[in-house]
Amino acid sequence: MSVTLEQALRATVGDAGLLAGADVESRSCDPFRNVPPRGSLIVRPANTAELAAVMRLCSSHRQAVVSHGGRTGVSGGAYTDEDEIVVSLERMRAIEEICPEGPLAVVQAGLSVEALQQAAAAQGLFYPVDLGSKGSASIGGTIATNAGGNRVLRWGMTRQNLLGVEAVLADGTVVSAMNRLVKNNMGYALKDMLCGSEGTLGIVTRAVLRLVPQPMSQDVAFVSVHHHAGLMELLARARRLPTLSAFEVMWPDYYELVAASDTGRRPFAPGAGPCVLIESMGYHPQSDRLQFEEFLVAAGEDGLLADAVLAESGKQVAELWRVREAAEVIVRAMSPFVSFDISLGIADIEPFLPRVRKALAHRFGAVRTATFGHLGDNNIHIAAHVGPDTAVLETEVEAVVFEVLRDYDGAITAEHGIGRHKRVFLPAHKHAGEMEMMLRVRDALDPLRLLNRNVLF
Amino acid sequence: MSVTLEQALRATVGDAGLLAGADVESRSCDPFRNVPPRGSLIVRPANTAELAAVMRLCSSHRQAVVSHGGRTGVSGGAYTDEDEIVVSLERMRAIEEICPEGPLAVVQAGLSVEALQQAAAAQGLFYPVDLGSKGSASIGGTIATNAGGNRVLRWGMTRQNLLGVEAVLADGTVVSAMNRLVKNNMGYALKDMLCGSEGTLGIVTRAVLRLVPQPMSQDVAFVSVHHHAGLMELLARARRLPTLSAFEVMWPDYYELVAASDTGRRPFAPGAGPCVLIESMGYHPQSDRLQFEEFLVAAGEDGLLADAVLAESGKQVAELWRVREAAEVIVRAMSPFVSFDISLGIADIEPFLPRVRKALAHRFGAVRTATFGHLGDNNIHIAAHVGPDTAVLETEVEAVVFEVLRDYDGAITAEHGIGRHKRVFLPAHKHAGEMEMMLRVRDALDPLRLLNRNVLF
Repeated sequence: MSVTLEQALRATVGDAGLLAGADVESRSCDPFRNVPPRGSLIVRPANTAELAAVMRLCSSHRQAVVSHGGRTGVSGGAYTDEDEIVVSLERMRAIEEICPEGPLAVVQAGLSVEALQQAAAAQGLFYPVDLGSKGSASIGGTIATNAGGNRVLRWGMTRQNLLGVEAVLADGTVVSAMNRLVKNNMGYALKDMLCGSEGTLGIVTRAVLRLVPQPMSQDVAFVSVHHHAGLMELLARARRLPTLSAFEVMWPDYYELVAASDTGRRPFAPGAGPCVLIESMGYHPQSDRLQFEEFLVAAGEDGLLADAVLAESGKQVAELWRVREAAEVIVRAMSPFVSFDISLGIADIEPFLPRVRKALAHRFGAVRTATFGHLGDNNIHIAAHVGPDTAVLETEVEAVVFEVLRDYDGAITAEHGIGRHKRVFLPAHKHAGEMEMMLRVRDALDPLRLLNRNVLF
Repeated sequence: MSVTLEQALRATVGDAGLLAGADVESRSCDPFRNVPPRGSLIVRPANTAELAAVMRLCSSHRQAVVSHGGRTGVSGGAYTDEDEIVVSLERMRAIEEICPEGPLAVVQAGLSVEALQQAAAAQGLFYPVDLGSKGSASIGGTIATNAGGNRVLRWGMTRQNLLGVEAVLADGTVVSAMNRLVKNNMGYALKDMLCGSEGTLGIVTRAVLRLVPQPMSQDVAFVSVHHHAGLMELLARARRLPTLSAFEVMWPDYYELVAASDTGRRPFAPGAGPCVLIESMGYHPQSDRLQFEEFLVAAGEDGLLADAVLAESGKQVAELWRVREAAEVIVRAMSPFVSFDISLGIADIEPFLPRVRKALAHRFGAVRTATFGHLGDNNIHIAAHVGPDTAVLETEVEAVVFEVLRDYDGAITAEHGIGRHKRVFLPAHKHAGEMEMMLRVRDALDPLRLLNRNVLF
């Protein structure tokens, strides 16, 4: 990048706002691997006006930028090339307001999800987007990627919890759509468009987020069913619990691995059918529990359950969730593996899974999988190991799985996003008209292709 | 319009697909007034391919079109000028699929909301967007306007119930984004952008809609509170009912009018504070009722309620809803009046209402209002009468109310849309950057400004 531009950027954001050299090389654009930015500079504006000035400069110098939040994304969206500079929102972390009447929060984009949750909890409120990476993940990053998580079934993805947004476009235009109202039909849903655009349409600077009252009950059961049909029936019944907050399925390839580990995660012996962690979160501990127990008892009496454990304490709730969140067991037992975050119709999952395993075995010989997911959201995760060369074969493994997925109109990413890693696969999974419409919108808002230009499409 | 174009359109959609003369003049673009299209032609494609061909022709002839659904909108979105032709979706009314596993429905845009609800109910399912005009309102129209209704508090507006959409752009490009998955992060939220765009970005042809299980309980109470602070506390407590489906407030200017009418709508004598209809809809009749009663008893014991009636039968439920849905009483007692559909922060409503009444009285002398609304959604409706010339003064009355509303960052339309009627007011209530971003998107998708060109902005 030009010396003139660097000087102008420094004049705009000050010395504290610019990082170079070792300060750039020591960070990673990937949460699991050490992938430093290949660009030379990290620009850290202190507020929206500074970011707008930064983008006006970049625009007049045709300087491409990559925006960084908490860098917890797993699709390579934060990877930065030599001719790109990083714009990080890390100095914009203010909680401007927690409004109990909304209830809602007004925050800057660099704030972590966890910091928001803590501030909300102090007022008896809850921000329901809940991620494993919440300690580092920034609100801006979760908006840019429309992050999901464990409680989508109850409260939706980030988009459903986003009331308003402020963003800076590629040319420095500030778009302030900081709506606080549940109902507001004045024009296009700009917030919904910016959300999930992976930083290609604008850089999110501030947001208004919906909060809910802090739940006062949490009931968890861990059950197993005999077969897929039983799973479907159990889900249909669970949906009638208004407090249902999670329906997490673990297929036998997952549960056998976890139950056989020496980590104490074994509520009961593995059987032939899938296991499910079912959770209810509500505001009336006594009657929530009653409804939850009635649901379980009826499912048992009707022969739906092969096995069942009901948590009797907060400690047991945590233990049962540990069975579902056993990433380190998978890492230890199956590395190297390719990790999938796909979604498809829940009735299609039964034919899909054996077809995928067969296709992988046909192509790579021996194959091992571990399958689990948020069934009520159509979202399943598969870890696939095809031998010691799995890492090298990653794109080929993905191609095999995505080809089967196409037959079921599935999505190659349910919640992680396309980023750089899945970009090559996108056109085959989108209608040509959709690609055309996305391109027109992107060109209209970022004609020089300055924002995250290697991301999405 | 040119003879060549009319012949080409006839060749595309056939004789059954074209209406002219008396068939045009006999319809109205407004549900309450007789406002025939001023254009000469109504084109009625039988399917998406025909509509795409129609738009290719219109595009090459630079022929402007106005899209028609059920023509129940009250903002003039369907009004048609002499140099515009109507494209009506009325021949595209198929229910392609009701899928219990989703649960979801795949339908064509011309279908009525009520027809969808009936088809869903036949399979124990429910489409939760519920409008007074559902018998005529088309699914496509409700998508184009992001329709709300009475149960937004529980199930959201149309956008929250829309999984996928197919649309035809101004140049005839077909965009098929018929997603069926709860989680799908493959690219921009085109469906969310098309929804609420009032037909300015594309014409919706088909949709995938989320369904929910048919509720099995309905509990309704009609209460009054002493003052605004009590109303806020009651709403905060009601939000902890997971089955809360309506929280409809009627201020004294509304309830006194309705209770004094000879229509039998008077659960109790009017008092000094607002009344509220509170509704719960769930799937566990016994425990839903228990929670609802506990909520009411606690509110009573804590001195929140001035008066209260709990419905003991379906008949009483309907009677209490009739108090809230008393449009004909308002029409009889207050005509002519200007009708508002605004939203603002719920804590701001207390100072806002007397300020509005004062501003109207200051400008017009005597003023009468009736105020009611969906408080949990920020949405209030006001009928304002300023004397026998009210209809003539409509725009001036709106200007007075919207000027006060600006001080509270309110929305000039919560659910009805901008249409033609409120277009002049929009720029004063949107950030300049938002207007700029909307303009760029519209220009990118409809550069010739062929679609609903006098609508929105």
